[in-house]
Amino acid sequence: MHLRCVDCGERHPPALLYACARCGGVLEVAGESGLAAPADPSLRDSMWRDAARLGVLEARHIVSMGEGQTPMRRAPRLEAALPGFRGEIWLKDETRNPSGSFKDRLVSAGLSKALELGARGVVCASSGNAGASTAAYAARAGVPAVIVVPAHTPAGKVTQIAAHGAVLLLVEGHYSRSYDLARGLAERHGFANLTTTFLNPWAVDALKLAGLEIMERLGGVAPDAVLVPTGSGPLVKGVAQGLGLAGAAARLVAVQAAGCAPIVRAFEAGEAAVTAWDMPRTIASGISDPLIGYERDGTYTLRLVRNSGGLAVAVEDDALRRAMRDLARLEGVYAEPTGASPVAALRQMLAAGQLAPEARVVCMITGHGFKDGAAFAEMPARTHRVADPEDLAAVARLCDHALAEKD
Amino acid sequence: MHLRCVDCGERHPPALLYACARCGGVLEVAGESGLAAPADPSLRDSMWRDAARLGVLEARHIVSMGEGQTPMRRAPRLEAALPGFRGEIWLKDETRNPSGSFKDRLVSAGLSKALELGARGVVCASSGNAGASTAAYAARAGVPAVIVVPAHTPAGKVTQIAAHGAVLLLVEGHYSRSYDLARGLAERHGFANLTTTFLNPWAVDALKLAGLEIMERLGGVAPDAVLVPTGSGPLVKGVAQGLGLAGAAARLVAVQAAGCAPIVRAFEAGEAAVTAWDMPRTIASGISDPLIGYERDGTYTLRLVRNSGGLAVAVEDDALRRAMRDLARLEGVYAEPTGASPVAALRQMLAAGQLAPEARVVCMITGHGFKDGAAFAEMPARTHRVADPEDLAAVARLCDHALAEKD
Repeated sequence: MHLRCVDCGERHPPALLYACARCGGVLEVAGESGLAAPADPSLRDSMWRDAARLGVLEARHIVSMGEGQTPMRRAPRLEAALPGFRGEIWLKDETRNPSGSFKDRLVSAGLSKALELGARGVVCASSGNAGASTAAYAARAGVPAVIVVPAHTPAGKVTQIAAHGAVLLLVEGHYSRSYDLARGLAERHGFANLTTTFLNPWAVDALKLAGLEIMERLGGVAPDAVLVPTGSGPLVKGVAQGLGLAGAAARLVAVQAAGCAPIVRAFEAGEAAVTAWDMPRTIASGISDPLIGYERDGTYTLRLVRNSGGLAVAVEDDALRRAMRDLARLEGVYAEPTGASPVAALRQMLAAGQLAPEARVVCMITGHGFKDGAAFAEMPARTHRVADPEDLAAVARLCDHALAEKD
Repeated sequence: MHLRCVDCGERHPPALLYACARCGGVLEVAGESGLAAPADPSLRDSMWRDAARLGVLEARHIVSMGEGQTPMRRAPRLEAALPGFRGEIWLKDETRNPSGSFKDRLVSAGLSKALELGARGVVCASSGNAGASTAAYAARAGVPAVIVVPAHTPAGKVTQIAAHGAVLLLVEGHYSRSYDLARGLAERHGFANLTTTFLNPWAVDALKLAGLEIMERLGGVAPDAVLVPTGSGPLVKGVAQGLGLAGAAARLVAVQAAGCAPIVRAFEAGEAAVTAWDMPRTIASGISDPLIGYERDGTYTLRLVRNSGGLAVAVEDDALRRAMRDLARLEGVYAEPTGASPVAALRQMLAAGQLAPEARVVCMITGHGFKDGAAFAEMPARTHRVADPEDLAAVARLCDHALAEKD
């Protein structure tokens, strides 16, 4: 097992290393631990069922709260709601992870390996979800955590991070400023950096299991496309890699917010390299990442998307709100704006003829609606105050009226 | 399969019936469907793996989002934090259900059976969690839902219910007023009543699987005690019943909030019957149920607790806050006040000598911290604003200071 640069191919020893020492490129884990399947039922019911495929060498270093092995279901009412669609929509429900987002996969793997390599504390720059995950797992492991997030991070995420006792730094400005600060702090404190861009190869490595789970759930038949909410893009890589491990492939669709779409911009312009985005502006906090200073992450993701025959798609905030409503009202799935973005992209791609009406697609629902209640609280709802509950006839009339409303 | 009165033993046909027609007592499901294990992997990964033990006769009526089969883990850091404790604490993490609480078990079973019995809509009175669950499952099934909650229900729960498109009625006053209104509306609209007191036997029946899961996880060796957050008490029954199905038993501890503790009051006074509570006042919204008009539910729960050799325990709001912190900061588990109440009770029972220091106990963590972010937001935290992230030395000093803080 070693680390390998995805750009120049250089090999590095299995350490806490965050970029290729030769060319500065993205590192990935090459090889597997071969660790025996854990005896502990709690681990067997988590992604650590496949511990052999991950980087941790000794089971005692594993920090787990039952992450991964998330449900994946058909979305029949959503399928029926998309004009002309005759295919299959599958929702890979990553909201069901311990802290409410797919970040738990990265953090469980990254923290476990960091502890194995001797780390005594962790730092994480985050738009909120990775920070909440890191704070929770660090609490479980009993190690100190410093979480760095943009000051405008949704309250639900900030409260969650603080609850787990982490030191929480709120930084003015966009995500890349938090990213830089976390790198500096990790170095100065000698803490492991669990920032969930492509920075930590041990963390990113675990996402391949999400791809494997998709293939297992579909009985080994690859989907036509997988739609992935995309900031810098580790989940795009994970899905591609997991499908590949199962001997399969699919079109990868990187979904970004129109207000922060550096990868989409490069894709549409036919550029080979991604350039940073100046002024992120979107309700999708989870993918609001301008990539300033680590544009190479985006370029790598762009390459993966192109190699798959897929595409990069930008969706407007209004389309995100509609997708959130669709998921919540048609399928009972409560997702934050970022988590609903694949559904927004799906509607748009169908309308634009970018997806065959009979396609079988998987949407990665990455984060829970609880994370950003404010985004829902402002939507129209059928909520009424009842001053006199004993006047049953009047309340029943109110109900009849509300039930008949189209909204 | 039929319905049976737990008080007078009268048998009733398997219908949408909410109380014994003879004596008004609590009904339970007697018998099992014997339904074959479902072929659908999504169902096999849910509590419907045990469909044979539930009341639904045809798999096509099942409405599922992967509820049940929740993780159960040891809590080593919490164990170490309890003075003199030498036993085992297991957390049954019901926050991991689809809508974030154990109510999904009841609602999945209750809604599925209601649809099988011909219902075309559902009503649910709730302190928030059962309402959110009902709204989500009704959305998934495509049937109308009317949710009735107290006006002071935490914002996180209200937002969640509204997001799923349910008609939401906010009723002034305590929970029992919502309960009465829901009964009236269900009758008038001809909708099934999914209120998760002991009202709907098809819903309550599913909770026995939680007890079975506990026994499975412990390798068939019964715990000494199971601590259960308790409003009216269906989960107390479910745990007792599930343990019984596995040929086991444990002391059942009904945990209530000191500000709404009708069952504890009767238990401590040695009364045979529970009387209603006048003025509920607690941060634990999920168990703030005065039982006005359905005191028999409480009496039944009291009987179950006594028969098990267990007890009923009341915890103050400050103890709840401490338990929330303990769970979040020691074990990485983010639970709302009600969900943390077993941990508060555990500390109290140990101090009072009501539990052996070497006991093996299971805490039912019933609801997610997201449900009531406000309860966390007001706690002290190690959160700091960073105006100038480029002054790394200054930020590192701030971090050092924050990391050294005891809080």
